[in-house]
Amino acid sequence: MAGTIEQKLGAQGILLHEPASPVANYVGFVRTGNLLFVSGQVCFDPEGKLIAKGKLGANVTIEQGNAAARGCGINLLAQLKAALGDLDKVVRVVRLGGFINSTPDFIDGPKVMNGASDLMVAAFGDKGRHARTTVGVASLPADAAVEVEGLFEVA
Amino acid sequence: MAGTIEQKLGAQGILLHEPASPVANYVGFVRTGNLLFVSGQVCFDPEGKLIAKGKLGANVTIEQGNAAARGCGINLLAQLKAALGDLDKVVRVVRLGGFINSTPDFIDGPKVMNGASDLMVAAFGDKGRHARTTVGVASLPADAAVEVEGLFEVA
Amino acid sequence: MAGTIEQKLGAQGILLHEPASPVANYVGFVRTGNLLFVSGQVCFDPEGKLIAKGKLGANVTIEQGNAAARGCGINLLAQLKAALGDLDKVVRVVRLGGFINSTPDFIDGPKVMNGASDLMVAAFGDKGRHARTTVGVASLPADAAVEVEGLFEVA
Repeated sequence: MAGTIEQKLGAQGILLHEPASPVANYVGFVRTGNLLFVSGQVCFDPEGKLIAKGKLGANVTIEQGNAAARGCGINLLAQLKAALGDLDKVVRVVRLGGFINSTPDFIDGPKVMNGASDLMVAAFGDKGRHARTTVGVASLPADAAVEVEGLFEVA
Repeated sequence: MAGTIEQKLGAQGILLHEPASPVANYVGFVRTGNLLFVSGQVCFDPEGKLIAKGKLGANVTIEQGNAAARGCGINLLAQLKAALGDLDKVVRVVRLGGFINSTPDFIDGPKVMNGASDLMVAAFGDKGRHARTTVGVASLPADAAVEVEGLFEVA
Repeated sequence: MAGTIEQKLGAQGILLHEPASPVANYVGFVRTGNLLFVSGQVCFDPEGKLIAKGKLGANVTIEQGNAAARGCGINLLAQLKAALGDLDKVVRVVRLGGFINSTPDFIDGPKVMNGASDLMVAAFGDKGRHARTTVGVASLPADAAVEVEGLFEVA
């Protein structure tokens, strides 16, 4: 039974899948007190295919990167659902860290990262507004175009 | 009416401006409990001009990078003032994350990042000493030379 | 007198050294409430020599990088011991942030970072499983191959 946040997402065509479990000695999320730290999510779609592969500034456009960042955001929500059962237990999106797979001259990381930020506000409204850090990195796992980590205050 | 910390900064010629509001679905800071997470601040000066533009290891010297990191620190303080009204409410600088726009062979990020660390101790004394992570990144928003994010314990 | 965790590490040949103190205005760790933030640790061994120097994708192999990440993890444990006196006071490894010194085409950061993750589970068992973010960066201090920061819930 989906909560109100998940229903709202469903009405926008966003369905939350079972998140992939890491195949190593780390986990998708850890809760400490009312804080939930979610591992960096690369831009895999629910079928495990990269939404965008490669570098911004080379073969990946800003639009493709923005869609990839949105996909990272959806993966964060899927982890939240696995952690909490119900997204309505999210009190506040506290912080997103965005890592953009970039050539040395790509300087529009924020436009890419907006894909994740906009999704959080689409899901949670004003509670979705967060502190954010966006940087361009030399490479990402699996040559993903974008990776986003999240910190959430939860009930 | 400036508190004692802000008066001390003023005596050193450091005036805190109104911080720029993000033009997107994120915010300058989020408080959760006694923790205040401040978004990554790039090295804009109060007039919105980059203190240093480009890469360490190429066109930006360590001295220029150090000044840029100090500018990021001033922007963090401006966010703190916007969040708290009075910098005297800062209990401890907990963590700074420093991202240095670097060529692949630039290995002196810590000397650059000291510009931000020194500013925190100039402002807060021993309470300004913090955990720190410094890395060299492929690119930064607007081609800024330095970006610094901060975490603060607040009253 | 070593606690049970440190004894277990000793039985695996892992001895914790006095961590190096930063020679700048930052510190190795800061505690706020029950959270302990540990500064980014580069892959120095106890003698202050880099376990691996240079870039993954160039002169550093995945195996060497994995050993370097494990070394960063040992340095995190040494900071924990300095902070807490006894590693048994660690309630949970909350989050590790892994920064891999990478060429633009190196995409196996997670295999490198497993060196740090595996060490945490070797030390703390299930309490050692953590949220994790791994990215490839353009450069690291001293040309270290790996840098890892940590967040811990402590008693």
